[in-house]
Amino acid sequence: MSSTIKGNKLTVSVYGQSHSPSIGAVIDGLPAGIEIDNDWVSAFMARRAPGQNVFSTLRKESDKPEIISGLVDGKTCGAPVAIKIDNKNARSEDYDELKLVPRPSHSDYTAYVKYGGNNDIAGGGQFSGRLTAPLCFAGAVCIQILKSKGVTIKSHIYSIKDTFDEPFDLENLYDDEIQYDPFFPTVSRFKGDRMKQVIEIAMENNDSVGGIIECAVLGMPAGLGEPMFDGIENLIAKNIFGIPAVKGVEFGSGFAGTEKYGSQNNDPFTVKDGKVVTVTDNHGGALGGITSGMPIIFRAAVKPTASIGIPQTSVNLKTMKEEEITIHGRHDPCIVPRAVPVVEAVAAITVLDLLL
Amino acid sequence: MSSTIKGNKLTVSVYGQSHSPSIGAVIDGLPAGIEIDNDWVSAFMARRAPGQNVFSTLRKESDKPEIISGLVDGKTCGAPVAIKIDNKNARSEDYDELKLVPRPSHSDYTAYVKYGGNNDIAGGGQFSGRLTAPLCFAGAVCIQILKSKGVTIKSHIYSIKDTFDEPFDLENLYDDEIQYDPFFPTVSRFKGDRMKQVIEIAMENNDSVGGIIECAVLGMPAGLGEPMFDGIENLIAKNIFGIPAVKGVEFGSGFAGTEKYGSQNNDPFTVKDGKVVTVTDNHGGALGGITSGMPIIFRAAVKPTASIGIPQTSVNLKTMKEEEITIHGRHDPCIVPRAVPVVEAVAAITVLDLLL
Amino acid sequence: MSSTIKGNKLTVSVYGQSHSPSIGAVIDGLPAGIEIDNDWVSAFMARRAPGQNVFSTLRKESDKPEIISGLVDGKTCGAPVAIKIDNKNARSEDYDELKLVPRPSHSDYTAYVKYGGNNDIAGGGQFSGRLTAPLCFAGAVCIQILKSKGVTIKSHIYSIKDTFDEPFDLENLYDDEIQYDPFFPTVSRFKGDRMKQVIEIAMENNDSVGGIIECAVLGMPAGLGEPMFDGIENLIAKNIFGIPAVKGVEFGSGFAGTEKYGSQNNDPFTVKDGKVVTVTDNHGGALGGITSGMPIIFRAAVKPTASIGIPQTSVNLKTMKEEEITIHGRHDPCIVPRAVPVVEAVAAITVLDLLL
Amino acid sequence: MSSTIKGNKLTVSVYGQSHSPSIGAVIDGLPAGIEIDNDWVSAFMARRAPGQNVFSTLRKESDKPEIISGLVDGKTCGAPVAIKIDNKNARSEDYDELKLVPRPSHSDYTAYVKYGGNNDIAGGGQFSGRLTAPLCFAGAVCIQILKSKGVTIKSHIYSIKDTFDEPFDLENLYDDEIQYDPFFPTVSRFKGDRMKQVIEIAMENNDSVGGIIECAVLGMPAGLGEPMFDGIENLIAKNIFGIPAVKGVEFGSGFAGTEKYGSQNNDPFTVKDGKVVTVTDNHGGALGGITSGMPIIFRAAVKPTASIGIPQTSVNLKTMKEEEITIHGRHDPCIVPRAVPVVEAVAAITVLDLLL
Repeated sequence: MSSTIKGNKLTVSVYGQSHSPSIGAVIDGLPAGIEIDNDWVSAFMARRAPGQNVFSTLRKESDKPEIISGLVDGKTCGAPVAIKIDNKNARSEDYDELKLVPRPSHSDYTAYVKYGGNNDIAGGGQFSGRLTAPLCFAGAVCIQILKSKGVTIKSHIYSIKDTFDEPFDLENLYDDEIQYDPFFPTVSRFKGDRMKQVIEIAMENNDSVGGIIECAVLGMPAGLGEPMFDGIENLIAKNIFGIPAVKGVEFGSGFAGTEKYGSQNNDPFTVKDGKVVTVTDNHGGALGGITSGMPIIFRAAVKPTASIGIPQTSVNLKTMKEEEITIHGRHDPCIVPRAVPVVEAVAAITVLDLLL
Repeated sequence: MSSTIKGNKLTVSVYGQSHSPSIGAVIDGLPAGIEIDNDWVSAFMARRAPGQNVFSTLRKESDKPEIISGLVDGKTCGAPVAIKIDNKNARSEDYDELKLVPRPSHSDYTAYVKYGGNNDIAGGGQFSGRLTAPLCFAGAVCIQILKSKGVTIKSHIYSIKDTFDEPFDLENLYDDEIQYDPFFPTVSRFKGDRMKQVIEIAMENNDSVGGIIECAVLGMPAGLGEPMFDGIENLIAKNIFGIPAVKGVEFGSGFAGTEKYGSQNNDPFTVKDGKVVTVTDNHGGALGGITSGMPIIFRAAVKPTASIGIPQTSVNLKTMKEEEITIHGRHDPCIVPRAVPVVEAVAAITVLDLLL
Repeated sequence: MSSTIKGNKLTVSVYGQSHSPSIGAVIDGLPAGIEIDNDWVSAFMARRAPGQNVFSTLRKESDKPEIISGLVDGKTCGAPVAIKIDNKNARSEDYDELKLVPRPSHSDYTAYVKYGGNNDIAGGGQFSGRLTAPLCFAGAVCIQILKSKGVTIKSHIYSIKDTFDEPFDLENLYDDEIQYDPFFPTVSRFKGDRMKQVIEIAMENNDSVGGIIECAVLGMPAGLGEPMFDGIENLIAKNIFGIPAVKGVEFGSGFAGTEKYGSQNNDPFTVKDGKVVTVTDNHGGALGGITSGMPIIFRAAVKPTASIGIPQTSVNLKTMKEEEITIHGRHDPCIVPRAVPVVEAVAAITVLDLLL
Repeated sequence: MSSTIKGNKLTVSVYGQSHSPSIGAVIDGLPAGIEIDNDWVSAFMARRAPGQNVFSTLRKESDKPEIISGLVDGKTCGAPVAIKIDNKNARSEDYDELKLVPRPSHSDYTAYVKYGGNNDIAGGGQFSGRLTAPLCFAGAVCIQILKSKGVTIKSHIYSIKDTFDEPFDLENLYDDEIQYDPFFPTVSRFKGDRMKQVIEIAMENNDSVGGIIECAVLGMPAGLGEPMFDGIENLIAKNIFGIPAVKGVEFGSGFAGTEKYGSQNNDPFTVKDGKVVTVTDNHGGALGGITSGMPIIFRAAVKPTASIGIPQTSVNLKTMKEEEITIHGRHDPCIVPRAVPVVEAVAAITVLDLLL
């Protein structure tokens, strides 16, 4: 069940291809009696939807989810909540030739091998970033439920290429001012503007850039997660790697923490408002895989969009000769901004399961 | 089943605490008819065992595994292979006081909350790095089986604190010269020596350092792994985060790749020896979660050892007052060298499952 | 993920309620490149659909499945195959009162408790037998694939109330004559007619009857299934109990076998066409949970339809007083005939997973 | 992970073969802070141990479990509880010949095929009933925990061959008088004596008999279990079929219920002590897979012991010719009495998971 986030109680199963009649999700294990806040869900999904800014693909996508099961009188009833998003754009025929010449750093080639050439190449098929739309629906519902339990999720664009935002720290995490722009959330508005310039330059050169997304889960109680292989880090990492283009996940001080001394990286304990807390959060909210009650902070590395307008070298799988390939059409020069809500969604689905 | 690596066919379940009568593992799903190469297993486990060099704890541990089920005439018979390693050092009583004042950046506090104070604090209990010994046994057996299928695993110390080795590339990966020192494997002997100095300095200061381990899986066929949440990256990441002290996992160009343009990070396809390959391996052997046939390359960030001899601030969980804590006894100033075979073991267990 | 048959490779997830906008299934893990034989699937699903004979509910149901993802050019492409069946009948409002007085031996009460009164009571909600329609779609596809692997599934109505058909044996199992009536399959046409009379009598009395379904899987190779808890019997039983109204599952000689001596119940080995076979099949094709290569034979006990027209005693959950309840509307006096393809479907899904 | 009962929280993994150095279990997910009542566990395990009466094998087995991890100061600490039971009898060499001529209705042949002849034939290897000893340890601990939650498990020998005990009903279930003989529990002492005679006759004839075990779980709250494939019936059935020799499982009125009219089989609701209950328990405590709060009642069919002293026909797998085989040594002419605690253990493990 590869397209499924499998929690102990909560599972989210995604289906569809970029150009199949519909895409969607089946969400099983939600508490019964929840009234879904459709406005909030729509606003959340809009952050992922294309066409929100100049960097985003102009391809016309309908992201309007239709709930086809799981509700009674607008409330969850215990049955799986199934949604479907119809694909308006029919599958074009001109993909067939593409199949023989896989696009570099896309899944075209690996899918070809795995499925013996039967894979759906159109728009990336089941590997398309479009599949993250139903994930966002599921995540939005989970975020709504998490809120009622005192848990919030916050994230920002940590970097675009080599331009970095201010990182989250134990102060700005609780500052509501940040993330003023839901479509391009950064701690520093100034850094955000510079990041946009970096994307613009890439776009002008028919090139692409990637970046890092930093996400924090606030309000999780201490003591959740299991030792070793089912810790909070294991679960989040496993699921975050399910987002297309993610190539790295780190918690707390992460890779940078390896360059510090233990005396610098350790987080002293102290007492605040009668609760045990740590002075710093280099551990990213998890010790031994178990939540410490501090913010769970992680970062996801998003590679530069594989689709670029610059000619690239590939191989024709029939002739087994090299061929030059140029990817036509508009593609996001940077998917990081649209991936931010997806990261939040996947995090929300993952941590909610621990609270059910 | 938190202490279990769960594959579709192969599962490895670890049990024990630092000071329980025994620790061990149950390995289920190994092919029948395999003769375990005990010498190779012992040599592999020795790389993880303490006391191999001056940086390593002097604590006397027996790492001798006893196979208590699963074999007939020295060959696997289809039944789970269970091993046990007896703990020679009895549990000392002086841990009880420690329980009330959790060591910073250890799991003492989170385990205390999770288990309502019933957790085994002695030596870290079930969170002890000692639990990686049975993992190494399981991994060694898997590596042996992988070899028979043409798959090898290679790794090195990528960095200690801010001192970096030469990274793996598509040339040195196939150079048998590297990793001359199984207890401190580096591509560059010179860099290895400098790393050792870094550790020595930390040790002298009663401090600790961390580092990064780079691991490559060579020879995996293309087309393995499932889309989205059960891809090769998801599975490896989930399991690698089960190794104590790992705080980050990245594949291919990983976090550094986010600082490149798409045109630099994309891997052109070409043909070599009649096979489709990529010129570079920034994708780390996985596209869309599915193996490409190129080396699977990943790095794991290992935080500085949490146990340091320098006084630290903690909280007494009874009085809820801050207390200064000094961790006595010898501890590894850097666990990275001993963690290298553990990373290999976990990688081997994970990828073997895809080949069964 | 309660509404999901979870195999190692193949999973079938069902969603929907009796009166939700749609019901459906997501089938993940089918081999790529399979062309679905829609005529065969339709014929198979028709066996479960209502209105095929006088005993069956007249409620107008549309069982026409719409494939909304997972195909390219009519062939499976590796992406999950999602189907949806729209419910034409809107949810009527008169169910609300029913909610407070649970129908005896239905899931009304247990669902009420589980979901805190938020359960969908209309038509049984997610517990409705209607949810077996998408299961039949999935099963039909699996049967089609099984055929290509030399595996066939055969079943008949073993009994209706106290009227029994001829049981399967190693001869009639290979006789194509049986099961002449796909909507009421029996080995003996005469016994089938008598069974129908039994149902008619129940119907006339506003009462209901149950029965037993016997199912055989032919052509499974020996050596499949895992010892103890993942044997072929464990898997089939777990899934067959997922069919509404099933209250018992037995293999081979089953419960009757407990009344025999070992010398009568043991199956001697012999050689036939160069293959090891057993002379009898009291073991039902599984020894130690592993297939023997003999037909897998099992029986499922289907309780009498809980919905009867006779007044019954229940409790008003608000007043906590007894109330007499009479279930109006037409209901199947016996669901056994329509459950036969469902049993086949679930068996097919279960065993196909072992062959992928 | 075939030898594992996998709950959401609780898992019990069994390892070992009949003649491996040890057999044992790893129990993960037990609540922390539980003090194991060793006397109770021993008494429980004694019910399964051989040599308790004249019908039972005289083979000297040590059933003394040694707890090798998971406790601190005699209490569970959150780490997996691992136990080991050493096998005193070394593996005899005279099994090798046996391997080529599989015993009818044992797993010899299917294991041979599955493991390519590498299976452990000695004493049935991993398929031996001896593996139920560690299961009983785990079950005993679970029963102890269940008691503290107000849940008790009760069972009796429902039948031996064609001699039947009084069935459980809603009165005798709460009568502490029954099951006076822990080693041969029956509701009726008279019927118990007749059953023993039936076994004696079989023993005298070198033959064997089977029987049915009826088990009830009392005190489970309503609302537990999941719809369709993860209901209480699915879970219990899946696990009970993991007990060697079980060939059928039914709930409530089960197969016999199929011979009744709906009006007879339905269970009217009523109110008792302010709680909704049913007047009868034909549903066996589960409706729609979800507990109703009524006793969960199920029966397991145990086939006659496959090992009999009467000559049988088998096939020599080398020569592919029929051979007569006579099984030497003492074997239980009926394993039903010793299987009773195993059924209780598996039921306890299964239902406890729903309460954690």
